Amino acid sequence: MERHLDQLLAELKANFLRVGAAVEESIDQAVHSLVERDNGLASEVIRGGADIDRWEVEIEDQCLKLMATQAPVASDLRLLATLIKANYDLERCNDQAVNIAQRTLVLNTMPLLKPLIDIPRMAELARRMVKDALDAFVQCDAAMARQVCLMDEQVDQLRDQIFRELLTYMHFAAQPDTVDRGVNLILISRHLERIGDHASNIAENAIFLVEGRIVRHQKEKLAQHDN
Amino acid sequence: MERHLDQLLAELKANFLRVGAAVEESIDQAVHSLVERDNGLASEVIRGGADIDRWEVEIEDQCLKLMATQAPVASDLRLLATLIKANYDLERCNDQAVNIAQRTLVLNTMPLLKPLIDIPRMAELARRMVKDALDAFVQCDAAMARQVCLMDEQVDQLRDQIFRELLTYMHFAAQPDTVDRGVNLILISRHLERIGDHASNIAENAIFLVEGRIVRHQKEKLAQHDN
Repeated sequence: MERHLDQLLAELKANFLRVGAAVEESIDQAVHSLVERDNGLASEVIRGGADIDRWEVEIEDQCLKLMATQAPVASDLRLLATLIKANYDLERCNDQAVNIAQRTLVLNTMPLLKPLIDIPRMAELARRMVKDALDAFVQCDAAMARQVCLMDEQVDQLRDQIFRELLTYMHFAAQPDTVDRGVNLILISRHLERIGDHASNIAENAIFLVEGRIVRHQKEKLAQHDN
Repeated sequence: MERHLDQLLAELKANFLRVGAAVEESIDQAVHSLVERDNGLASEVIRGGADIDRWEVEIEDQCLKLMATQAPVASDLRLLATLIKANYDLERCNDQAVNIAQRTLVLNTMPLLKPLIDIPRMAELARRMVKDALDAFVQCDAAMARQVCLMDEQVDQLRDQIFRELLTYMHFAAQPDTVDRGVNLILISRHLERIGDHASNIAENAIFLVEGRIVRHQKEKLAQHDN
């Protein structure tokens, strides 16, 4: 019975990683569609998001079934409870990729605002955070999870920098079009920020899983500048 | 033993509602501090947010302890697993109230942009969604939960309307100051939108609890306009 549960948990983790890889690809493609002004690719991300949503519902379902039928105790129970939360965060990463693709479709109806500034760099960081957070979670690697939380600070710095630079553009080229494009790019940077936040949450859950303590709220959230 | 678990679950639900009431008050106060340009109140929301964070960690801790020590089955197990998720969403509502208070402190350094448009109305709707979602969750009232999901559509409509109106302001009074204030108000409306989203998630969890099926993703997310 014990071995059977081990095997079921291993399958569950593998499924979780598979969904994670699909979410990473969605983030990549959403930002690629923005950079390349590729409506077809943006639409693909939106369609693919619905598939990912379904897989995530299945994972949660599997967690609840294992809880109910296998009577897991101690660390297995904690794994399942934490996986429900991590899966919830992964689902939100997917939502944000879809939001970026939807906003790209809007932006592609307007002329290009020359600089995407550091948005592609911010996207690459956010995508890597998701990958590393999932790996840290599945491999129970608290050190890697802590690296993810540190990367979130870089993402937040980029968010602030992008915000300032886009505002400056909007100030000096104060035409309706520039304002619209600037605001849409600011909102895309917020979607990326949220992906970083969710990846951090997954990483914090990984640390909880390994060390049995809840680390969220310990970095002083309130001190962070949310500009 | 069985009765003992019932009592522990009732206490847990009561704690959850207490934290929920504190979060509702934070949302109220954050928007009040915006409307009244009250920096003291905004700072209070930011300080209070840290307390609420701690209470939420305690609730999750209680859920995990009950899972580990009481070996709950069937509906009790489902309640605990779902409460972990709902608590997670409530925590995010609190984060959003703190974000609004932080952004209010920024806005209060600038002259008032005359209209707050429908932001107070949007805030009132979002706050009510949180209240009703928690009541629906604790009282296992699927009908009330469905009402919450419908209210989310109103919140999204207000978000779109506010976005359009603020862009128009920014177009026609294209001064740096107007752009800055307009962008900050747009971001506040996004924080309120996210409160509505989290309340919807809690409501969907309430429906899951009552009816045993996962309703999220069933309303066609992808059709929604995220402008």
